[in-house]
Amino acid sequence: AMTATDELQVVPIGSGVSVRAAVGRAVEMLQERGDFIVETHASGTNVEGDLETILDAVREIHHALHREGSVRLLSYLKLETRTDKAPTLAGKRL
Amino acid sequence: AMTATDELQVVPIGSGVSVRAAVGRAVEMLQERGDFIVETHASGTNVEGDLETILDAVREIHHALHREGSVRLLSYLKLETRTDKAPTLAGKRL
Amino acid sequence: AMTATDELQVVPIGSGVSVRAAVGRAVEMLQERGDFIVETHASGTNVEGDLETILDAVREIHHALHREGSVRLLSYLKLETRTDKAPTLAGKRL
Amino acid sequence: AMTATDELQVVPIGSGVSVRAAVGRAVEMLQERGDFIVETHASGTNVEGDLETILDAVREIHHALHREGSVRLLSYLKLETRTDKAPTLAGKRL
Repeated sequence: AMTATDELQVVPIGSGVSVRAAVGRAVEMLQERGDFIVETHASGTNVEGDLETILDAVREIHHALHREGSVRLLSYLKLETRTDKAPTLAGKRL
Repeated sequence: AMTATDELQVVPIGSGVSVRAAVGRAVEMLQERGDFIVETHASGTNVEGDLETILDAVREIHHALHREGSVRLLSYLKLETRTDKAPTLAGKRL
Repeated sequence: AMTATDELQVVPIGSGVSVRAAVGRAVEMLQERGDFIVETHASGTNVEGDLETILDAVREIHHALHREGSVRLLSYLKLETRTDKAPTLAGKRL
Repeated sequence: AMTATDELQVVPIGSGVSVRAAVGRAVEMLQERGDFIVETHASGTNVEGDLETILDAVREIHHALHREGSVRLLSYLKLETRTDKAPTLAGKRL
């Protein structure tokens, strides 16, 4: 197992000018996992947790949002891992 | 003039495992402008301000960091503008 | 003046599932500049040129697309500069 | 199973100004999978394949690069899925 940090920004295309519902659903799914530290901000959601579990959550979010009506989804990820110490959201803040 | 929001993440390459000094310098330059709302987080810095002024600040940050010793710089931007209402960092938070 | 490379991906939000028209317009504007090396690919458009001119082109693209009807625009940029040699698209290919 | 397209850009931090070796290794691992359409360009590598398999490849790339000496790794992903038709790299080109 390897700890990672990630920024996830989910952008639904073609479901109107507001993307709030899809973004909120993705954040909710990250929080419900219980495995992650989750920090929302204006340009995405920062996550800290196990690398494999984070990638699995991204996959689940795409499936769930499509199931709930999204036709086209773009996800922007900034994934980080390191071996000298555990990467943490706290450690990445100034 | 057009208001924009942006996420800026500056990544210096080849200056060691820690990127903290360059990131801190970029944030400081955004704050010193006085024109922006600036919100730092673990994966970058969110900025709200005039589109042209934000892009000018990005240019200045590259020049300043190179002048201060950075050899190679990557900047990741998520720029947003809209015409139905002013885009704001506050409005983009859940 | 400082040479830069950039990847630009323009994503119009709320104008339907197809984003092709806006993306094509952005590429056309980059090419019409005459100042840039422009290479399109499936996830964006790579540009090589003067840093300030690239950022100015991004600003113009936002203004033009809004003028032509886009209500909400996201642009994702990967901007690179370096001082040890000129950054080139050719040099960044494997 | 769900088809996805992705852009992957792997950035090793703290291993010198050149990132070519790590990027080349990541591309090689994507190609060796045999499951993907892989298109390299100056700002990353575009991949078409099964969503879960792509995310698994990203995980494996992080593990392999760390095993081979990278201390800190950033990966930038642009992941896309859609339900109205299969997303393809060919379809995303202009």
